Amino acid sequence: MTVIYDRVALIGLGLIAGSMAHAMRAGGLAGEIVGYARSAETRAVARDLFCDRVCDTAAEAVQGADLVVLAVPVGAMEAIAIEIAPHLKPGAVVTDVGSVKQAVVEAVAPHIPAAVQFIPGHPLAGTEYSGPRSGFATLFQNRWWLLTPLEGTDPAALARLRSLLDAMGANVDEMDVARHDLVLAVVSHTPHLIAYTMVGVADHMRRVSEQEVVKYSASGFRDFTRIAASDPTMWRDVFLTNKDAVLDILGRFTEELFVLQRAIRMGDGDHLHAYFTRTRAIRRGIIEAGQDTAAPDFGRGVDPAKGTAGE
Amino acid sequence: MTVIYDRVALIGLGLIAGSMAHAMRAGGLAGEIVGYARSAETRAVARDLFCDRVCDTAAEAVQGADLVVLAVPVGAMEAIAIEIAPHLKPGAVVTDVGSVKQAVVEAVAPHIPAAVQFIPGHPLAGTEYSGPRSGFATLFQNRWWLLTPLEGTDPAALARLRSLLDAMGANVDEMDVARHDLVLAVVSHTPHLIAYTMVGVADHMRRVSEQEVVKYSASGFRDFTRIAASDPTMWRDVFLTNKDAVLDILGRFTEELFVLQRAIRMGDGDHLHAYFTRTRAIRRGIIEAGQDTAAPDFGRGVDPAKGTAGE
Repeated sequence: MTVIYDRVALIGLGLIAGSMAHAMRAGGLAGEIVGYARSAETRAVARDLFCDRVCDTAAEAVQGADLVVLAVPVGAMEAIAIEIAPHLKPGAVVTDVGSVKQAVVEAVAPHIPAAVQFIPGHPLAGTEYSGPRSGFATLFQNRWWLLTPLEGTDPAALARLRSLLDAMGANVDEMDVARHDLVLAVVSHTPHLIAYTMVGVADHMRRVSEQEVVKYSASGFRDFTRIAASDPTMWRDVFLTNKDAVLDILGRFTEELFVLQRAIRMGDGDHLHAYFTRTRAIRRGIIEAGQDTAAPDFGRGVDPAKGTAGE
Repeated sequence: MTVIYDRVALIGLGLIAGSMAHAMRAGGLAGEIVGYARSAETRAVARDLFCDRVCDTAAEAVQGADLVVLAVPVGAMEAIAIEIAPHLKPGAVVTDVGSVKQAVVEAVAPHIPAAVQFIPGHPLAGTEYSGPRSGFATLFQNRWWLLTPLEGTDPAALARLRSLLDAMGANVDEMDVARHDLVLAVVSHTPHLIAYTMVGVADHMRRVSEQEVVKYSASGFRDFTRIAASDPTMWRDVFLTNKDAVLDILGRFTEELFVLQRAIRMGDGDHLHAYFTRTRAIRRGIIEAGQDTAAPDFGRGVDPAKGTAGE
């Protein structure tokens, strides 16, 4: 139980900020946790659940803070940066938890005073829930937290931030800003867009088939709906701000899909079988990398009332 | 513990047949469980784990059986039907567990003798694992088992089959053959194809990004890989035999995806936000219909060593 920052200001009080607060409290990592959110209701919940003090403005919340965490949707980052900049304490560190990094750097970095370090970050952790009641202390356990430090970052400031993330259970890694956005477009952003699309298609069908789609949602579709239930504002901003990488990956995806679609139309079973065999190996790689459970159906079977579902 | 069929023959001894055998044993539902699989290794495992008797040919396995379950890939159904037809006991019921129904009806029904009832079926249950060691007795608990009875099916034979599926914990429903194939194309077949495609795209990227894709697989991509790890032979046959419905849904999917892609390119945030908000409601419908757990991230959090991951 070592205090790493005397005062931490959380700007935005949703799933990520709430989980950070719970984790910092559980580990005694922060002397004081101050919060700000736009909604008065969110502020009230955060005051009850995980903040030592809640302010009515972001400017007030960051005063005297040693660490400021920007945990708002990417599209809201610039306005917040402009508002808090004059109130930041010299020597403070500002970080963020946005799902894209180039756009955040462009929105935030120009406004940060020279005496303050801005170290962009992105925890690869979340659930399909959002809001101030959705956080929990173990969200970051054994999950990656990517930092994309800019040129000239003070090594001591970086090391201190890393030690906080370590202490919350995360595996910290550093990465180039542009590479981050490309890798995330592949592993997260494009899959989410595709899931949203498939659920939208099913929604049309549902209207013609009287709830059959919902009733018989087998494993494929059901997993897509979980992804597609995530926060709409956050995801809108992800796609608007990581546009180039997402459009690049979407182009590759459409090409691949058309090749498989053609194989179906032409009855080319060998092509399909070879393709499906290759994708199995990738799943094995992920299990070996410790990023998922090997239990069948994600271990859903632990709830015997629910059982498992599939094909 | 009431014996529903004196002798049940399982043709094909993978996840579904194995789970049926375990469930029938647990409930004392079958007097004798006889099995056949093409592979000698599979037969040996099934003999150890869940069959009372294993035969070297399908023809031998069905002799004297009151219920015959065809649990082979859809593409293998016709050859099996031709082989077993002369050996079926008058009064027996033949069912299958294939993921498509029209193609199975066309492959099997013409070969079934008049004194035998063929009642096609499809359990909406499975995991990403396959093979004779992958089955377990509770696989069908609270899951749908769709039957698509043909015209002239004997009501008593249908009722008896339903009582077996009920006793294994499944929720039995009846459905028209063509409707089954359309609904499944939406809720299962097309989502699987899309997941396979996205994993294939990532595989290309992985080669250029040195394992980053696997290492940082966040929730979106990770869920896709689970789907895409399913049995290649089964899925090849699904796409070849439910071609029309899958191509129809794929066409709708591509149209929707292009509309979203255009919104990203044009920066139309309102369109994206409205779309993502609509898809949330569908997820709620599925949870209310009891087809999934409401626990965050599928309840992966129950394993504290793994935690949860997301955006």
